Amino acid sequence: MTEDVRMERDTFGEIAVPNARLWGAQTQRSLQNFKISTEKQSPELITALAVIKRAAAEVNLGLGVLDEQKARAIMQAADEIIAGQHPGEFPLAVWQTGSGTQTNMNLNEVIANRASELLGGERGEARKVHPNDDVNRGQSSNDVFPTAMHVAAADAIVKHLLPALKTLRDTLDGKAKAFAGIVKIGRTHLQDATPLTLGQEFSGYVAQLEHGIRHVESALPHLYELAQGGTAVGTGLNAHPKFADAVAATIGKLTGLPFVSAPNKFEVMAAADALVFAHGALKTVAAGLNKIANDIRWLASGPRCGLGELRIPENEPGSSIMPGKVNPTQSEALTMLCAQVFGNDVAVNIGGASGNFELNVFRPMIAHNVLQSVRLLADGARSFNDNCAVGIEPNHERIDTLLNESLMLVTALNPHIGYDKAAQIAKKAHKEGTTLKASALALGYVTEQQFDEWVRPKDMVGRTAG
Amino acid sequence: MTEDVRMERDTFGEIAVPNARLWGAQTQRSLQNFKISTEKQSPELITALAVIKRAAAEVNLGLGVLDEQKARAIMQAADEIIAGQHPGEFPLAVWQTGSGTQTNMNLNEVIANRASELLGGERGEARKVHPNDDVNRGQSSNDVFPTAMHVAAADAIVKHLLPALKTLRDTLDGKAKAFAGIVKIGRTHLQDATPLTLGQEFSGYVAQLEHGIRHVESALPHLYELAQGGTAVGTGLNAHPKFADAVAATIGKLTGLPFVSAPNKFEVMAAADALVFAHGALKTVAAGLNKIANDIRWLASGPRCGLGELRIPENEPGSSIMPGKVNPTQSEALTMLCAQVFGNDVAVNIGGASGNFELNVFRPMIAHNVLQSVRLLADGARSFNDNCAVGIEPNHERIDTLLNESLMLVTALNPHIGYDKAAQIAKKAHKEGTTLKASALALGYVTEQQFDEWVRPKDMVGRTAG
Amino acid sequence: MTEDVRMERDTFGEIAVPNARLWGAQTQRSLQNFKISTEKQSPELITALAVIKRAAAEVNLGLGVLDEQKARAIMQAADEIIAGQHPGEFPLAVWQTGSGTQTNMNLNEVIANRASELLGGERGEARKVHPNDDVNRGQSSNDVFPTAMHVAAADAIVKHLLPALKTLRDTLDGKAKAFAGIVKIGRTHLQDATPLTLGQEFSGYVAQLEHGIRHVESALPHLYELAQGGTAVGTGLNAHPKFADAVAATIGKLTGLPFVSAPNKFEVMAAADALVFAHGALKTVAAGLNKIANDIRWLASGPRCGLGELRIPENEPGSSIMPGKVNPTQSEALTMLCAQVFGNDVAVNIGGASGNFELNVFRPMIAHNVLQSVRLLADGARSFNDNCAVGIEPNHERIDTLLNESLMLVTALNPHIGYDKAAQIAKKAHKEGTTLKASALALGYVTEQQFDEWVRPKDMVGRTAG
Amino acid sequence: MTEDVRMERDTFGEIAVPNARLWGAQTQRSLQNFKISTEKQSPELITALAVIKRAAAEVNLGLGVLDEQKARAIMQAADEIIAGQHPGEFPLAVWQTGSGTQTNMNLNEVIANRASELLGGERGEARKVHPNDDVNRGQSSNDVFPTAMHVAAADAIVKHLLPALKTLRDTLDGKAKAFAGIVKIGRTHLQDATPLTLGQEFSGYVAQLEHGIRHVESALPHLYELAQGGTAVGTGLNAHPKFADAVAATIGKLTGLPFVSAPNKFEVMAAADALVFAHGALKTVAAGLNKIANDIRWLASGPRCGLGELRIPENEPGSSIMPGKVNPTQSEALTMLCAQVFGNDVAVNIGGASGNFELNVFRPMIAHNVLQSVRLLADGARSFNDNCAVGIEPNHERIDTLLNESLMLVTALNPHIGYDKAAQIAKKAHKEGTTLKASALALGYVTEQQFDEWVRPKDMVGRTAG
Repeated sequence: MTEDVRMERDTFGEIAVPNARLWGAQTQRSLQNFKISTEKQSPELITALAVIKRAAAEVNLGLGVLDEQKARAIMQAADEIIAGQHPGEFPLAVWQTGSGTQTNMNLNEVIANRASELLGGERGEARKVHPNDDVNRGQSSNDVFPTAMHVAAADAIVKHLLPALKTLRDTLDGKAKAFAGIVKIGRTHLQDATPLTLGQEFSGYVAQLEHGIRHVESALPHLYELAQGGTAVGTGLNAHPKFADAVAATIGKLTGLPFVSAPNKFEVMAAADALVFAHGALKTVAAGLNKIANDIRWLASGPRCGLGELRIPENEPGSSIMPGKVNPTQSEALTMLCAQVFGNDVAVNIGGASGNFELNVFRPMIAHNVLQSVRLLADGARSFNDNCAVGIEPNHERIDTLLNESLMLVTALNPHIGYDKAAQIAKKAHKEGTTLKASALALGYVTEQQFDEWVRPKDMVGRTAG
Repeated sequence: MTEDVRMERDTFGEIAVPNARLWGAQTQRSLQNFKISTEKQSPELITALAVIKRAAAEVNLGLGVLDEQKARAIMQAADEIIAGQHPGEFPLAVWQTGSGTQTNMNLNEVIANRASELLGGERGEARKVHPNDDVNRGQSSNDVFPTAMHVAAADAIVKHLLPALKTLRDTLDGKAKAFAGIVKIGRTHLQDATPLTLGQEFSGYVAQLEHGIRHVESALPHLYELAQGGTAVGTGLNAHPKFADAVAATIGKLTGLPFVSAPNKFEVMAAADALVFAHGALKTVAAGLNKIANDIRWLASGPRCGLGELRIPENEPGSSIMPGKVNPTQSEALTMLCAQVFGNDVAVNIGGASGNFELNVFRPMIAHNVLQSVRLLADGARSFNDNCAVGIEPNHERIDTLLNESLMLVTALNPHIGYDKAAQIAKKAHKEGTTLKASALALGYVTEQQFDEWVRPKDMVGRTAG
Repeated sequence: MTEDVRMERDTFGEIAVPNARLWGAQTQRSLQNFKISTEKQSPELITALAVIKRAAAEVNLGLGVLDEQKARAIMQAADEIIAGQHPGEFPLAVWQTGSGTQTNMNLNEVIANRASELLGGERGEARKVHPNDDVNRGQSSNDVFPTAMHVAAADAIVKHLLPALKTLRDTLDGKAKAFAGIVKIGRTHLQDATPLTLGQEFSGYVAQLEHGIRHVESALPHLYELAQGGTAVGTGLNAHPKFADAVAATIGKLTGLPFVSAPNKFEVMAAADALVFAHGALKTVAAGLNKIANDIRWLASGPRCGLGELRIPENEPGSSIMPGKVNPTQSEALTMLCAQVFGNDVAVNIGGASGNFELNVFRPMIAHNVLQSVRLLADGARSFNDNCAVGIEPNHERIDTLLNESLMLVTALNPHIGYDKAAQIAKKAHKEGTTLKASALALGYVTEQQFDEWVRPKDMVGRTAG
Repeated sequence: MTEDVRMERDTFGEIAVPNARLWGAQTQRSLQNFKISTEKQSPELITALAVIKRAAAEVNLGLGVLDEQKARAIMQAADEIIAGQHPGEFPLAVWQTGSGTQTNMNLNEVIANRASELLGGERGEARKVHPNDDVNRGQSSNDVFPTAMHVAAADAIVKHLLPALKTLRDTLDGKAKAFAGIVKIGRTHLQDATPLTLGQEFSGYVAQLEHGIRHVESALPHLYELAQGGTAVGTGLNAHPKFADAVAATIGKLTGLPFVSAPNKFEVMAAADALVFAHGALKTVAAGLNKIANDIRWLASGPRCGLGELRIPENEPGSSIMPGKVNPTQSEALTMLCAQVFGNDVAVNIGGASGNFELNVFRPMIAHNVLQSVRLLADGARSFNDNCAVGIEPNHERIDTLLNESLMLVTALNPHIGYDKAAQIAKKAHKEGTTLKASALALGYVTEQQFDEWVRPKDMVGRTAG
């Protein structure tokens, strides 16, 4: 069966493009030259590129360097892409040229063909709008692609990740407050330690998320610096002198985020430090979420042979062979995706460190990893919140039983009888399987009255947060 | 618009499933509970699971523990999946339970419903084949999923990665032989060094790939050990005593690979060391490919202001702003995906290190990364071979010019006049911008005749490989 | 030969300790139980621990919970350690208990014995100061060690890393200004691109360092939060209510840094997110330095067969066999240590993600990596500055030659004749080995006058920074 | 105070060297140019370099290209270094030139000066043996350093790591056999699962170590290939044609390991794939040890509020504040060092991927990480074996209690009543806090006799290994 094709042309000559498609020669060539795995350029990145194209047309129109008809058609075509009306037109692999040039041309070609049609023209060679001279006017892939990476990353962080983290923080904060009165055994080195409240334990998670949010926010200012206007190597050749600032402002208007033109275009094109640093914040959030998810699945372990201090929502059957089994699956998904974020971090580091001269050519890979990590953490935090955290409940009976068996309550005796005698009491109780009190009295270091007065779990949890 | 649904049931109760779908309650529940990012279980893994289900049905039939009609229907349904006839039926995310139970159940449900239809029954609650009792008979996700990971990884390595690496090795070996007579400047520390032939340089790449192939092959024996038959925790509870060996043999027959039943089921279920090690071989291949890709793009750098010793195929326009620019895009794609493999390696390591007791629950993440890395390296090597390596040609003129300007030919004088005097000659020539010979004669350390006899690039490249 | 020993005692009983040593039973026991590799606790960490002990004694004295004589002796002993007077007394391995308890006890024991001697007493069992009850008063390893990590990391960052980065930034900024008038070929994808000035190229490095400094600074606020006062599990059991704030203030006074008591002690003890994030900034600096070091060694490659645009200081003989060879060794050291920082980052991430309940027990490993990375980057930046950056000089002749050969000057024609015709000119010149001008005229797209007016490298470098 | 110095000379001129030192000008210059952090070249690497120098002198003597007196003196000087008689003479940092040239020269200089003294001459300029022309005869740093890396790594693996892993495997195998009759609860997802024996659980660890040993062994063949004889760029310039094979054989004789001359010298000098792959095996061992160490500390958690199934040796006081606390410190040290190995792996990968043309210049960093990882794993496994594994004992009472409370014994009913009814029984028991049997009888799915016959933990552990 022959596909209906048209001939498109680039500086390498003619190439057949499916007639049903808006893309052109360079997109088609990339499809043929890079048949590598299944990862495509992220939708967030495509949207950001369309935002840039729209802003550039608007600015070029305002600066008088682009014909109004063409400019309006480009803006409308870009708006359609932003609105998700051309989802099948961006088929290119992550694994292409390291500058993302082919994906920039994919946008240029789709917009040129679509704008031509909007102007009553054809798609293809006879189109009324030129991909390079009109859509890409005043631009180079070398400034467009880094700009798109910053726009996509900042947008996804501000609009998806931060809200998801705040929701989880609020949920856990609610738990911390609700659990403020529940005294429980502490654990250090997986071994019994002095008591704290379950609320205090959860307050630690809240503080981790608080700090995590701040860490992520501290990565935004560098991301808000845009390369647009640097063109080929950072000098701004062929772009209007006012183009850079005007485009940044226009992108800011379109996204609602405070983008600015990067004060130094050479840095933002030749390096990817803003994204390396942003991913450093993402991996820190992953470290925090990993700790929280692990704690919760351990505290909920059992139901009969684990720690069993928490009950978490039972969402699905846990086993294809063990009937009735329920597993901490949200913790599992979250810890798996945190491991992925740690892996992505390394890929981003290597890419970021590997720029040469005027350009970093590991861009599509960096974009892929940063945007995936943002998506994983945002969706992961939200899924964990909705399907686990909101439903966490204490198992009061189990918590009390364990608390009262602990030998580490002995620590309260230190100020009264010293570390060495207190240690003797604990060791004797451990060896003989007795209670702390029995051991203390047997050794004669305290009276019963003293013991009862000094060793009160509720008095051992302090006045600190939570 | 209301979607046409039917009610399916698992141990958590009823849930609405789209009628157009063969999957059942547990798949549907997973879709609702894990709305996390866009990564789905890999097709290679789904196929491997279908192979296991087919083999298990065949073996259970032979052992007399599964009704013949049901067994035949299960086998046929599995064959359809293997043949790619149900591509839309496996929608689950990588980010689900860490045992992959939900994807195992996805297979069980699709096969049960499809087998029921093949037997003239319905899909849904009234089906004639039970997902757990029939399709999953003698199995647990805990042995099925690790088995599928080994089958999918070994299959992809043997059938895709190794052939791609061998093709590239052969191409480069052809170049090494073709370039055997071309003497060129060597470079160490990016600085001019003693000469070698271009063939020798390429022979190093060939040797890297040779070793890389061997490294990957050395990971296969552990991957050939299958967990199947261990069931829930490795003891084989509820599986027929002959099940494990028979299933491994049947999977071997279906795939053409020498799978065996793992001698110790506890190891292969609780850990993922076989995959951690296999990925260690993959990352070594990435290190090798990265070096090769970098060398080639540097040697082809220019056209006027770089090293310019090689010409590589010009495949597409390189710039949206700089007309006529051609870039080493295949090297760029290859080095980007190598960076990804290095990142994936870390994710696999963390997952592999994080098993607890009888089960590793980082499995879907590990599978995702291992299979992606195999795909990236296989496709990347093939794309680099087809679109770059086969077309590499030397730029003879440039190679000769550089060779004759080099100061490091002075090394040939060491055995005759000693290191210190040779260094004086080179330093003087460098400082004064003269030739080596002029400097040597000016210093009076050699006669013209001696210089011409001793300093012959063609005599300096030895008799070693390439 | 029998070593002169004394018997010391802990809760496990007696153990022989070399009489020449101030350490006690627990230090000795750790030496015997952890004979693992050669990495010792970092000197920066030991100093920070001594600062904490000194501050705690001062505060406990002020709060009236420690005898004045003992307190003064403890403070003096700690001051001696801070002054480096007891370098051989801290022999413990990084690879010990994950809480660092043994190193905390090492400090407690050395200070107790030394303070006892200062008070006219003995070292050993009969000492006048108790390691736990006096030196460790109001403290636990669980709050002491995280506090020491924050103090040591913040101190090293502020006093060593940031000044080193600023020095290098200033040096490169001086170069950027000095090289402002030197127009040179740009390079993207390692291929010739449009021109820029050497000053602009260096301004990119300056901007990377500027941002790097800001990234590192953004990690300080979290590091300034101290765990001290949380004692065993964060509740502050056995510490005076005013202890936490007073100790933070005193440590601030001793170090000159704005430390505060962490508002949530559970977070700072159970997690290590502040250090994970700080290392995220460190690895970003590594990415930046790596790019700079690579650019410089490539631009200085040659002397005859490389790019050769820069001259860097010749510091030592480069080869044991090739006389006269000089290599970019400072770039090599810097890129190697950047790779180490990327590796350390992964170790820190895994450690940081692996806390359980009330304590993270990967602390000595995290401390080791963070402090090593700070040291590597600080020393590496300084060495690169002093031995390379300050001496960088342009090779004017080479720069001019390459600039004038470039085909990418054609980009300046885009606004006049369009991308497609400009591409034809460049491709023709490349294919035929002619100049751009000859090709342009041959194709008849421009007149000689137009070409000379439009294609002026000096006019192509814009008005942007650098 | 003025240090007693002598003037030494290299091709850069004179430099003052401490008279007490055997090293010369280039070592001294490196000390001054690379004041970076505290990491020095590993002792294992220095020894390997001395082995090479000794072998080279012996071979050059045999080939008649080195004076006998000089050769004997060089051999004796090298033997002294191998015997550890000159420990203070190798002061150079890891962070130096990436070829390790300065450390190769350090060896050349120390041996030249020491050999001169052995021949009755001086140290310094008037010495009777030349560092380059005599000690380095037929060699280049570019083949010496990679050779030393292979020799040091293979030697440390064969003589330290593999024996340590085998010892731990044997200890755990002894435990597996001793614990073969102890039936216990299984755990998957941290949740109660079907039973197995403690011996089976430990057999999984044994199998992990078995595989780990095989993985490490599979890395040896590539490490046994030596670069020696390739000299500057792999062509063997200035080395006798028989030198390469003879040196490999001699090194084999000196170390007792089957070294061979690398069939392709370009690969082994330009890349570091053998070490990247070897570290891939090391990280796999780390993944295995991490799992084992975690399992054991969790199974030993408590003493009152954890899982408590195992008792591990109590080696030291666990807390500076909680008297009587004992912690799983060997597991902590082991998991920390495994995290370090995962970090080192990334550094090695980046270094290995970053060779250019004829040389990889990330060598000292790669050597540092590989040798550190070998040391960490060897010492860590041995420490864990001696101080923990040998003393592991089951807590029979606790194991029995937990086993009998488990709800997952219900799995044994699947073949009799089907998965769905079995799930109902387990869920009802869980919800009501009753025993499985009570629930089963209440639901009427089995008779008491059937339950007692079908649900027998001892019959549920199969016949598999352990």
